[in-house]
Amino acid sequence: MGESYGAWRMGDDEHAMPLIDQANLACGFHAGDPLIMRRSVALAVRHDVSIGAHPSYPDLQGFGRRHLSCTAEEVTALVLYQLGALDACCRAAGTQLAYVKPHGALYNDLVRDDALFAAVLEACALYRKGLPLMVLALADNRRELELADTADVPLLFEAFADRAYLADGQLAPRRLAGAVHQDAERILAQALAIARGEPFADIDGKPLQLQADSLCVHGDNAESLAVLRRLRAQLDTL
Amino acid sequence: MGESYGAWRMGDDEHAMPLIDQANLACGFHAGDPLIMRRSVALAVRHDVSIGAHPSYPDLQGFGRRHLSCTAEEVTALVLYQLGALDACCRAAGTQLAYVKPHGALYNDLVRDDALFAAVLEACALYRKGLPLMVLALADNRRELELADTADVPLLFEAFADRAYLADGQLAPRRLAGAVHQDAERILAQALAIARGEPFADIDGKPLQLQADSLCVHGDNAESLAVLRRLRAQLDTL
Amino acid sequence: MGESYGAWRMGDDEHAMPLIDQANLACGFHAGDPLIMRRSVALAVRHDVSIGAHPSYPDLQGFGRRHLSCTAEEVTALVLYQLGALDACCRAAGTQLAYVKPHGALYNDLVRDDALFAAVLEACALYRKGLPLMVLALADNRRELELADTADVPLLFEAFADRAYLADGQLAPRRLAGAVHQDAERILAQALAIARGEPFADIDGKPLQLQADSLCVHGDNAESLAVLRRLRAQLDTL
Amino acid sequence: MGESYGAWRMGDDEHAMPLIDQANLACGFHAGDPLIMRRSVALAVRHDVSIGAHPSYPDLQGFGRRHLSCTAEEVTALVLYQLGALDACCRAAGTQLAYVKPHGALYNDLVRDDALFAAVLEACALYRKGLPLMVLALADNRRELELADTADVPLLFEAFADRAYLADGQLAPRRLAGAVHQDAERILAQALAIARGEPFADIDGKPLQLQADSLCVHGDNAESLAVLRRLRAQLDTL
Repeated sequence: MGESYGAWRMGDDEHAMPLIDQANLACGFHAGDPLIMRRSVALAVRHDVSIGAHPSYPDLQGFGRRHLSCTAEEVTALVLYQLGALDACCRAAGTQLAYVKPHGALYNDLVRDDALFAAVLEACALYRKGLPLMVLALADNRRELELADTADVPLLFEAFADRAYLADGQLAPRRLAGAVHQDAERILAQALAIARGEPFADIDGKPLQLQADSLCVHGDNAESLAVLRRLRAQLDTL
Repeated sequence: MGESYGAWRMGDDEHAMPLIDQANLACGFHAGDPLIMRRSVALAVRHDVSIGAHPSYPDLQGFGRRHLSCTAEEVTALVLYQLGALDACCRAAGTQLAYVKPHGALYNDLVRDDALFAAVLEACALYRKGLPLMVLALADNRRELELADTADVPLLFEAFADRAYLADGQLAPRRLAGAVHQDAERILAQALAIARGEPFADIDGKPLQLQADSLCVHGDNAESLAVLRRLRAQLDTL
Repeated sequence: MGESYGAWRMGDDEHAMPLIDQANLACGFHAGDPLIMRRSVALAVRHDVSIGAHPSYPDLQGFGRRHLSCTAEEVTALVLYQLGALDACCRAAGTQLAYVKPHGALYNDLVRDDALFAAVLEACALYRKGLPLMVLALADNRRELELADTADVPLLFEAFADRAYLADGQLAPRRLAGAVHQDAERILAQALAIARGEPFADIDGKPLQLQADSLCVHGDNAESLAVLRRLRAQLDTL
Repeated sequence: MGESYGAWRMGDDEHAMPLIDQANLACGFHAGDPLIMRRSVALAVRHDVSIGAHPSYPDLQGFGRRHLSCTAEEVTALVLYQLGALDACCRAAGTQLAYVKPHGALYNDLVRDDALFAAVLEACALYRKGLPLMVLALADNRRELELADTADVPLLFEAFADRAYLADGQLAPRRLAGAVHQDAERILAQALAIARGEPFADIDGKPLQLQADSLCVHGDNAESLAVLRRLRAQLDTL
């Protein structure tokens, strides 16, 4: 969220914020200028939503979705920079960063590059002892847990309600047919299964079970807002 | 200081840092990318130099020297952003921001625009109670003190060793002949007078007395480094 | 037009383009990345719309609406740069730039700064002999005509259908009540008067007559699109 | 060349320009703002040096040396944009682009990615029929010649005087010992062998022969300037 920039609008944060518990806020490198960051923080505070930093490679033009071959040292520095910048907005609003969730290509690159993963963990550890990093919940997260343990950083695991999964818990690549669920019922069913810790069907129809602390919904269109409303209502009854 | 960017070098921070007490470090908007900021902070820490944030209008191409007509709300947000970003580097190095000194056009604009001055004060106050703002020492700083008092922000006053002054303590504009002292003896004499709280000659040769907490030397060439060395030696005997 | 950027959308160019004769396309400094520029040019070519360059101060965050104190030499260079960049997209589509209309703060600054006006004229003249510059039609454009004559650059004059005017033909500042017409009938009436070279009411209700080559409509919402459709229909009957 | 930016200087173009025949000028995406581009073009024209565009991924912070995962369509657009921008500076100086040589990571990526190579070729072909693309001279350049032939773009081949080569004519990666020649005699010998079309020793000491139209010297330190002077003198006697 907070992914507008200057005169450009993105998402419908006003209507999505009341429905969620955690908001990943852009930090200026892929979206979110300083003014928008302050307003997004204020909106989150108003709705008692905890604030996660959503740091990115520096790439406004590509919205942080393009891989940029940074060194580990560069990644630690650019994540640290963005954590501080967003946390300044939090401090000014009487709150603080609750966690860190990398954005776009940086998030995706963590899966296959230990040095990069360690670089992001280092930024979290250096910024504040105990600041959690949010990563993708897989069928088996031992790799992530070991790296995080070494860096003394707590992890939060996130799962997706509207994306199809491979057998190992990786997201099905968007180029595959059926990678993104369009059907509201299916999205709701998968969300509830994840919330209850129950198995659901992967892209091949086989059962997959994920342990997740957070459920991600892309809040950038009217449809997802409708799903979000129903989901919120159902989760509140769990 | 810390005004390199990516592959470009500026200044000789390695040699200047051991000679000074306070370093104004660029925060990424006019110079200083995240990696350079971390290195500059490490250098300052190594030499026990206190770190000031040097926030700027967003203008790499103009090095922050061009006026940009921002609203007061924009200025508060962009200063806050830069304070957090640099302070994150400080936290990672076990220290924290000691003060704030705006850079270039933003610094100059504070003199004539109360709303802008209040906007920068607000950023300081919101970021951390008691965080001082550094401004130009004038013959009469009542305006600045009143505005700062309202915002509950302490002020630090800075004077320049290598610039000629107008009668009211404003810096003589660079377009005037003699606005910048080239003569090392003259620079040293003015620096010592300011350090001792004694009067020195303004641009018309009339006596001017300034109360200053900080003495600014532009550290971007070999000559100023030589002056800095002699100045350091003399100040250490005061 | 062409004022989207990366993942951010602005305006409804698809629907506006068939209704107009001239499109001012952003050149990357306030909006419009290279990909969007190519697509905007293709869209204009498809609808046989002539293409004007819409160069700006370098300020994505402020959408080019903030004054930036550039030197005349800087302005000539940055306009030239943007003309070439957009014209490259035109050449790739088998056409070429038809005229130049500065954007936002740069456009507004031309009114009061002869050196800046001359700097933009110089960029036009250097880029291509005979390339016209589009400026604000005033009650009296002698200043602009003299400067353009010196630079040997043809001028195009533009008037606004949806803005109230001061007595001298300057646009009423947006902070004044009634500065922007909200009423579709009023916008249409003013547009037709300008198109016919007839007088219309300025902000004080007094008659104002403007000689204009181009009629500007801000195409960034559904309402303006509706006005544009009616206007197009009426103009086609003139 | 032309790789300064705003207040930051890089290279010694003033002294290098009189010694060379072709200058690759930065186009604003990795270095070179519009003002510096105009000055660099003027300097090249003064010394009768032909001007090549040196387009890059958009990455000032990384000086264009970091890979950015752009689509082919994005690459065509961003190269086209930069060609136009630099050529505008050329037109203003009464000359025009002579060729195109991609910079840094974009240059390196062409070697292994046919779609990217085709995207750059398309930008050249779209910009101006017959505009040549400069690429790395290899022991066998059939791949490059076939792709260029399809796009109807002439190629220029460039070889390096100060870099060690692998057996196939690829540059030895900088991480290998001996990848960059430090010895002036060795650089001169390799340069003359290439200029004469004679074999020289690759990184394993085996003979390598390259057909090159252009000899690249990195002009960014005093030493390379000294080599350049001797090289110029020797080449003039060929």
